[in-house]
Amino acid sequence: MERHLKQILGQHIIADFYGVIEDKISYVEDLKNIFEKIVKEANLRKVSSSYHQFNPKGATGIILLEESHISFHTQPEYNYIALDIYTCSSEEATEKAFDLALQFLKPQSQDIKKLYRGESQKISKYLINEKF
Amino acid sequence: MERHLKQILGQHIIADFYGVIEDKISYVEDLKNIFEKIVKEANLRKVSSSYHQFNPKGATGIILLEESHISFHTQPEYNYIALDIYTCSSEEATEKAFDLALQFLKPQSQDIKKLYRGESQKISKYLINEKF
Repeated sequence: MERHLKQILGQHIIADFYGVIEDKISYVEDLKNIFEKIVKEANLRKVSSSYHQFNPKGATGIILLEESHISFHTQPEYNYIALDIYTCSSEEATEKAFDLALQFLKPQSQDIKKLYRGESQKISKYLINEKF
Repeated sequence: MERHLKQILGQHIIADFYGVIEDKISYVEDLKNIFEKIVKEANLRKVSSSYHQFNPKGATGIILLEESHISFHTQPEYNYIALDIYTCSSEEATEKAFDLALQFLKPQSQDIKKLYRGESQKISKYLINEKF
Protein backbone atom coordinates (compact mmCIF):
# COMPACT_ATOMS: atom_id res chain seq x y z
CA MET A 1 0.00 0.00 0.00
CA GLU A 2 1.36 3.35 -0.94
CA ARG A 3 1.43 5.99 1.75
CA HIS A 4 1.07 9.65 1.30
CA LEU A 5 3.41 11.69 3.45
CA LYS A 6 2.92 15.43 3.71
CA GLN A 7 5.95 17.58 3.00
CA ILE A 8 6.20 18.30 6.69
CA LEU A 9 4.52 16.69 9.68
CA GLY A 10 3.94 19.73 11.87
CA GLN A 11 4.11 23.48 12.34
CA HIS A 12 5.56 24.97 15.47
CA ILE A 13 5.05 28.61 16.38
CA ILE A 14 7.50 29.78 19.02
CA ALA A 15 6.68 33.15 20.49
CA ASP A 16 8.09 35.42 23.16
CA PHE A 17 5.58 38.07 24.21
CA TYR A 18 6.94 41.22 25.88
CA GLY A 19 5.08 44.03 27.61
CA VAL A 20 2.08 41.95 28.67
CA ILE A 21 0.04 43.40 31.53
CA GLU A 22 1.27 41.75 34.72
CA ASP A 23 -2.17 40.94 36.14
CA LYS A 24 -3.11 39.07 32.99
CA ILE A 25 -0.30 36.53 33.38
CA SER A 26 0.02 36.26 37.16
CA TYR A 27 -2.59 33.64 38.02
CA VAL A 28 -3.01 30.18 36.61
CA GLU A 29 -6.83 30.25 36.64
CA ASP A 30 -6.92 33.23 34.28
CA LEU A 31 -4.42 31.61 31.96
CA LYS A 32 -6.23 28.30 32.06
CA ASN A 33 -9.40 30.06 30.91
CA ILE A 34 -7.55 31.74 28.06
CA PHE A 35 -5.79 28.63 26.80
CA GLU A 36 -8.76 26.29 27.09
CA LYS A 37 -10.74 28.82 25.02
CA ILE A 38 -7.98 28.96 22.42
CA VAL A 39 -7.99 25.16 22.04
CA LYS A 40 -11.76 25.09 21.57
CA GLU A 41 -11.96 28.03 19.19
CA ALA A 42 -9.13 26.71 17.02
CA ASN A 43 -10.83 23.29 16.89
CA LEU A 44 -7.87 21.48 18.39
CA ARG A 45 -8.47 18.25 20.29
CA LYS A 46 -7.31 18.21 23.91
CA VAL A 47 -5.91 14.98 25.34
CA SER A 48 -5.07 16.38 28.77
CA SER A 49 -3.80 19.54 30.41
CA SER A 50 -1.64 20.45 33.32
CA TYR A 51 -1.23 23.83 35.00
CA HIS A 52 0.86 25.13 37.85
CA GLN A 53 0.81 28.33 39.93
CA PHE A 54 4.11 29.74 41.10
CA ASN A 55 4.22 31.59 44.37
CA PRO A 56 3.24 34.43 44.58
CA LYS A 57 2.81 35.17 40.87
CA GLY A 58 3.57 33.43 37.60
CA ALA A 59 2.20 30.29 36.02
CA THR A 60 3.06 27.52 33.63
CA GLY A 61 0.88 25.17 31.69
CA ILE A 62 0.66 22.72 28.89
CA ILE A 63 -2.18 21.31 26.89
CA LEU A 64 -1.41 18.00 25.29
CA LEU A 65 -3.29 17.75 22.01
CA GLU A 66 -4.07 14.93 19.61
CA GLU A 67 -2.19 17.24 17.26
CA SER A 68 0.85 17.87 19.57
CA HIS A 69 0.82 20.61 22.24
CA ILE A 70 0.43 24.18 23.42
CA SER A 71 2.61 25.41 26.29
CA PHE A 72 3.10 28.67 28.15
CA HIS A 73 5.43 29.91 30.87
CA THR A 74 4.94 33.36 32.37
CA GLN A 75 7.19 35.75 34.28
CA PRO A 76 4.76 38.48 35.24
CA GLU A 77 7.44 40.58 36.98
CA TYR A 78 9.00 40.96 33.53
CA ASN A 79 5.65 41.29 31.68
CA TYR A 80 6.81 38.23 29.75
CA ILE A 81 5.21 35.03 28.50
CA ALA A 82 6.83 32.28 26.44
CA LEU A 83 4.34 30.53 24.19
CA ASP A 84 4.61 27.44 21.98
CA ILE A 85 1.91 26.25 19.63
CA TYR A 86 2.87 23.03 17.90
CA THR A 87 0.39 21.08 15.80
CA CYS A 88 0.20 18.53 13.03
CA SER A 89 -3.21 19.98 12.23
CA SER A 90 -3.75 22.44 9.38
CA GLU A 91 -1.58 25.53 9.18
CA GLU A 92 -4.81 27.53 9.52
CA ALA A 93 -5.65 25.98 12.90
CA THR A 94 -2.14 26.69 14.17
CA GLU A 95 -2.33 30.31 13.00
CA LYS A 96 -5.79 30.70 14.46
CA ALA A 97 -4.63 29.51 17.88
CA PHE A 98 -1.74 31.94 17.71
CA ASP A 99 -3.92 34.87 16.64
CA LEU A 100 -6.25 34.18 19.55
CA ALA A 101 -3.31 34.17 21.96
CA LEU A 102 -2.25 37.56 20.59
CA GLN A 103 -5.79 38.92 21.01
CA PHE A 104 -6.11 37.66 24.57
CA LEU A 105 -2.65 38.60 25.79
CA LYS A 106 -2.04 41.82 23.82
CA PRO A 107 1.77 42.02 24.06
CA GLN A 108 3.44 45.32 23.26
CA SER A 109 6.02 43.44 21.25
CA GLN A 110 6.59 39.85 20.17
CA ASP A 111 9.32 37.65 18.72
CA ILE A 112 7.85 34.94 16.56
CA LYS A 113 9.53 32.02 14.88
CA LYS A 114 7.74 29.44 12.82
CA LEU A 115 9.43 26.09 12.38
CA TYR A 116 8.38 23.17 10.24
CA ARG A 117 8.96 19.88 12.03
CA GLY A 118 9.50 16.44 10.48
CA GLU A 119 10.55 16.85 6.86
CA SER A 120 9.35 14.10 4.52
CA GLN A 121 12.63 14.03 2.57
CA LYS A 122 14.59 13.32 5.74
CA ILE A 123 12.03 10.81 6.94
CA SER A 124 12.31 8.95 3.62
CA LYS A 125 16.10 9.02 3.75
CA TYR A 126 16.30 7.55 7.24
CA LEU A 127 13.27 5.29 7.15
CA ILE A 128 14.51 2.02 8.59
CA ASN A 129 12.03 -0.27 6.81
CA GLU A 130 11.07 1.11 3.43
CA LYS A 131 7.33 1.63 3.54
CA PHE A 132 6.35 4.13 0.92
CA MET B 1 15.89 46.91 45.28
CA GLU B 2 17.95 46.29 42.21
CA ARG B 3 17.19 43.15 40.28
CA HIS B 4 19.57 41.11 38.30
CA LEU B 5 18.18 39.85 35.01
CA LYS B 6 20.14 37.24 33.05
CA GLN B 7 20.82 38.04 29.40
CA ILE B 8 18.20 35.45 28.45
CA LEU B 9 15.59 33.70 30.54
CA GLY B 10 15.68 30.26 28.94
CA GLN B 11 17.23 27.86 26.46
CA HIS B 12 15.06 25.83 24.14
CA ILE B 13 16.45 22.86 22.22
CA ILE B 14 14.17 21.84 19.38
CA ALA B 15 15.08 18.53 17.81
CA ASP B 16 13.69 16.28 15.10
CA PHE B 17 15.11 12.77 15.33
CA TYR B 18 15.00 10.62 12.20
CA GLY B 19 15.75 6.92 11.76
CA VAL B 20 14.83 5.92 15.31
CA ILE B 21 14.03 2.22 15.79
CA GLU B 22 10.26 1.85 15.56
CA ASP B 23 9.87 -0.35 18.65
CA LYS B 24 11.66 2.18 20.80
CA ILE B 25 9.09 4.92 20.14
CA SER B 26 5.87 2.92 19.75
CA TYR B 27 4.72 2.54 23.33
CA VAL B 28 4.13 5.20 25.90
CA GLU B 29 5.41 3.14 28.85
CA ASP B 30 8.87 2.81 27.27
CA LEU B 31 8.98 6.52 26.51
CA LYS B 32 7.76 7.44 29.96
CA ASN B 33 10.66 5.45 31.44
CA ILE B 34 13.15 7.19 29.19
CA PHE B 35 11.91 10.72 29.85
CA GLU B 36 11.44 10.35 33.59
CA LYS B 37 15.06 9.10 33.73
CA ILE B 38 16.24 12.09 31.71
CA VAL B 39 14.54 14.53 34.09
CA LYS B 40 16.13 12.87 37.12
CA GLU B 41 19.60 12.52 35.66
CA ALA B 42 19.66 16.12 34.44
CA ASN B 43 18.53 17.31 37.89
CA LEU B 44 15.43 19.00 36.58
CA ARG B 45 12.44 19.40 38.88
CA LYS B 46 9.19 17.80 37.71
CA VAL B 47 5.92 19.56 38.48
CA SER B 48 3.69 17.05 36.69
CA SER B 49 3.65 14.85 33.62
CA SER B 50 1.12 13.66 31.12
CA TYR B 51 1.45 10.86 28.57
CA HIS B 52 -0.81 9.44 25.90
CA GLN B 53 -0.72 6.26 23.81
CA PHE B 54 -2.00 6.45 20.26
CA ASN B 55 -3.62 3.39 18.75
CA PRO B 56 -1.95 1.10 17.76
CA LYS B 57 1.46 2.74 17.94
CA GLY B 58 2.86 6.17 18.69
CA ALA B 59 2.90 8.26 21.82
CA THR B 60 3.02 11.79 23.04
CA GLY B 61 4.03 13.22 26.36
CA ILE B 62 5.00 16.26 28.27
CA ILE B 63 6.79 16.84 31.52
CA LEU B 64 6.05 20.17 33.10
CA LEU B 65 9.10 21.36 35.00
CA GLU B 66 9.75 24.07 37.54
CA GLU B 67 12.19 25.17 34.84
CA SER B 68 9.70 24.98 31.87
CA HIS B 69 9.05 21.70 29.99
CA ILE B 70 10.14 18.68 28.00
CA SER B 71 7.82 17.33 25.31
CA PHE B 72 7.90 14.53 22.75
CA HIS B 73 5.66 13.36 19.95
CA THR B 74 6.46 10.16 18.07
CA GLN B 75 5.47 8.77 14.69
CA PRO B 76 6.98 5.29 14.82
CA GLU B 77 5.83 4.41 11.30
CA TYR B 78 8.20 7.13 10.11
CA ASN B 79 10.93 6.33 12.68
CA TYR B 80 10.45 9.91 13.83
CA ILE B 81 10.27 11.72 17.14
CA ALA B 82 9.90 15.44 17.75
CA LEU B 83 11.57 16.55 20.96
CA ASP B 84 11.58 19.86 22.85
CA ILE B 85 13.70 20.59 25.88
CA TYR B 86 13.04 24.04 27.25
CA THR B 87 14.49 25.18 30.56
CA CYS B 88 15.38 28.28 32.51
CA SER B 89 17.91 26.13 34.34
CA SER B 90 21.60 26.17 33.47
CA GLU B 91 22.67 25.62 29.89
CA GLU B 92 24.54 22.53 31.15
CA ALA B 93 21.34 20.92 32.49
CA THR B 94 19.56 21.56 29.21
CA GLU B 95 22.43 20.07 27.21
CA LYS B 96 22.64 17.11 29.56
CA ALA B 97 18.95 16.32 29.12
CA PHE B 98 19.41 16.53 25.37
CA ASP B 99 22.52 14.31 25.35
CA LEU B 100 20.65 11.70 27.38
CA ALA B 101 17.77 11.77 24.88
CA LEU B 102 20.28 11.18 22.07
CA GLN B 103 21.86 8.28 23.96
CA PHE B 104 18.52 6.62 24.71
CA LEU B 105 16.89 7.15 21.32
CA LYS B 106 19.91 6.81 19.02
CA PRO B 107 18.58 8.54 15.89
CA GLN B 108 20.37 8.00 12.59
CA SER B 109 20.09 11.69 11.93
CA GLN B 110 18.88 14.76 13.78
CA ASP B 111 17.95 18.36 13.11
CA ILE B 112 18.69 20.52 16.12
CA LYS B 113 17.91 24.14 16.74
CA LYS B 114 18.76 25.99 19.89
CA LEU B 115 16.80 29.11 20.69
CA TYR B 116 17.28 31.59 23.47
CA ARG B 117 13.97 32.72 24.90
CA GLY B 118 13.18 35.96 26.72
CA GLU B 119 15.88 38.50 25.94
CA SER B 120 16.67 40.93 28.77
CA GLN B 121 17.07 43.89 26.41
CA LYS B 122 13.57 43.38 25.04
CA ILE B 123 12.15 42.77 28.51
CA SER B 124 13.67 46.05 29.71
CA LYS B 125 12.36 47.90 26.67
CA TYR B 126 8.79 46.74 27.13
CA LEU B 127 8.66 46.51 30.90
CA ILE B 128 5.41 48.20 31.84
CA ASN B 129 6.44 49.34 35.32
CA GLU B 130 10.12 50.13 35.49
CA LYS B 131 11.55 47.80 38.12
CA PHE B 132 15.24 47.43 37.58
